[in-house]
Amino acid sequence: MKKNYVRPLDLRHGSVDLSHGGGGRAMVQLISDVFGKAFDNEWLRQGDDGAVLPAPGPGERLVVATDAHVVSPLFFPGGDIGCLAVHGTVNDVAVMGARPLYLAASFILEEGFPLADLARIVASMAAAAREAGVPVVTGDTKVVEKGKGDGVFITTTGIGALPVGRSLSGANARAGDAVIVSGTLGDHGMAIMAQRENLAFDSEIRSDTAALHGLAAVAMAAAPGLRLLRDPTRGGLAATLNEIAQQSGVGVVLDEAAIPVDPQVAAACEFLGLDPLNIANEGKLIAVCPADEADALVAALRAHPLGARAARVGEAIADDHRFVQMKTAFGGRRMVDWLAGEQLPRIC
Amino acid sequence: MKKNYVRPLDLRHGSVDLSHGGGGRAMVQLISDVFGKAFDNEWLRQGDDGAVLPAPGPGERLVVATDAHVVSPLFFPGGDIGCLAVHGTVNDVAVMGARPLYLAASFILEEGFPLADLARIVASMAAAAREAGVPVVTGDTKVVEKGKGDGVFITTTGIGALPVGRSLSGANARAGDAVIVSGTLGDHGMAIMAQRENLAFDSEIRSDTAALHGLAAVAMAAAPGLRLLRDPTRGGLAATLNEIAQQSGVGVVLDEAAIPVDPQVAAACEFLGLDPLNIANEGKLIAVCPADEADALVAALRAHPLGARAARVGEAIADDHRFVQMKTAFGGRRMVDWLAGEQLPRIC
Repeated sequence: MKKNYVRPLDLRHGSVDLSHGGGGRAMVQLISDVFGKAFDNEWLRQGDDGAVLPAPGPGERLVVATDAHVVSPLFFPGGDIGCLAVHGTVNDVAVMGARPLYLAASFILEEGFPLADLARIVASMAAAAREAGVPVVTGDTKVVEKGKGDGVFITTTGIGALPVGRSLSGANARAGDAVIVSGTLGDHGMAIMAQRENLAFDSEIRSDTAALHGLAAVAMAAAPGLRLLRDPTRGGLAATLNEIAQQSGVGVVLDEAAIPVDPQVAAACEFLGLDPLNIANEGKLIAVCPADEADALVAALRAHPLGARAARVGEAIADDHRFVQMKTAFGGRRMVDWLAGEQLPRIC
Repeated sequence: MKKNYVRPLDLRHGSVDLSHGGGGRAMVQLISDVFGKAFDNEWLRQGDDGAVLPAPGPGERLVVATDAHVVSPLFFPGGDIGCLAVHGTVNDVAVMGARPLYLAASFILEEGFPLADLARIVASMAAAAREAGVPVVTGDTKVVEKGKGDGVFITTTGIGALPVGRSLSGANARAGDAVIVSGTLGDHGMAIMAQRENLAFDSEIRSDTAALHGLAAVAMAAAPGLRLLRDPTRGGLAATLNEIAQQSGVGVVLDEAAIPVDPQVAAACEFLGLDPLNIANEGKLIAVCPADEADALVAALRAHPLGARAARVGEAIADDHRFVQMKTAFGGRRMVDWLAGEQLPRIC
């Protein structure tokens, strides 16, 4: 007779309590009923403190990336924190040129969080992991008191394999290189903002959240001289290009007319006084490649469902100041700085 | 002229604000001045979205473990959330029998958190990582609004290398095996509780937080037939042995008189109505090995500074009920159940 009987989880009306993080029976039950069922795979079923996994093959190096996800609201048009936590980390691995192999997931739950919402988030995460072909192989759950968290935070860590000899890095851009984006900018950030601000448009602005390792593979195949890939999340294209400029010691000049922005995103940005170049994306690549490979790269991206609106948007130039500038639609030039302050908190 | 000038971080009087998570210049500055300086190593200096790392050698598999750390208070006798976040994950890798190679670290900061406290935590983390020989190779920082977090949460993910052919697992225990602990139980949990409850003792109860991969290597060398190692964190020895009993399909009988407990920890437990067997440890191993290797294993552990009070505390038995029981000091027997409720929230 076990004396501490635990009632079955009420996934419809129940909520997280502190016992679900306590290391006892309730935690084991939550892990088994919610996480174990959704993520089920041979590694997770090992049931130990960590997962034992095949290492990358000979001639491959490891890539490791980690990301905490604190997006608010948890559910938004086009996605939720669950699929975002998969895509965000898969993409960090993919832009290194690596093949994503495994994900680890760690949850910080707030006491009182509805189990139904947790199950919905975990199901979305599991679907995203399945679709990306990257299993969640190990995890952790902690619970904090009501008012000490915000529903759920999810940290994912991605492990990938990178062939020896392939090196994509923010430090590789050279003067004369082409700068390419794989599609419209600002969709994710404006989907979140539109929901927060209750903005109504003719049709909903949806997050572009997606796993990009397939598109990254297309880019690498189409442009053998590819310098680097990045996913312009927090801080948007502006922050990412400024980072690249700093790392590579070059300047960048963008062509405003060439930058794809969805008309509704543009309208929402104008309404809120925001610049699409500063807004987070969760399903877009930035590629820098030699100028003579740019056309092939854009064509290849456009042939992929996630790159239909790919465009060449600028070039790297010699500039000791490492400035990012933009030729405006009116024929002038302006600085494209990264922001000093916080424009969009908790966007991912 | 860059227009968004960022003032130098005031590490003495400043505090975290939302801009430090925004993907812009303030975030880059925080990462560079606080995290980059403390953790400095060649992998982190790559400065990309993830780290490129040598893979485990031929004949080795990967081990991945992840843990969110939400301990409250953040600073406690014997340690803080920083070193705990290193030790906890290094230990999860070590108990798999693996050699810990790398750590990824992800921070969720609450707006208003003092930068001085953050710097102190990061310094402690960096020192623990250096001492353990496991570099922090990549990381992430997010900031949530005041009241939506609790100072700082740290999720660490550990990557290790496990020789092919070595298999330590909670499923390996067999009837007749010896159960060994590497030292006194309950120190970490009671250090936290004593601080929370303002209990005063003759001398301070200190957390046992420590990296255990050295001690684990000693155990593997001393007991070639070693079945498994575990670190009894949340839920303490009781939860860990119940998990092992479930995974292995055995029962366990403990000998109360043999279980090492510090007298002050025992006194604090009695005062608070807690059982040391349920209290978290952060620097102790549980080992299960064939009975005829137990003496050699205990002797080897005792020769290591972290195992001075190692003891053989029980045995695995054939039991279809998979019960964990204890022969009490009074000659009776009692069940050692894992707890259904939450006894000690946010202990790690």
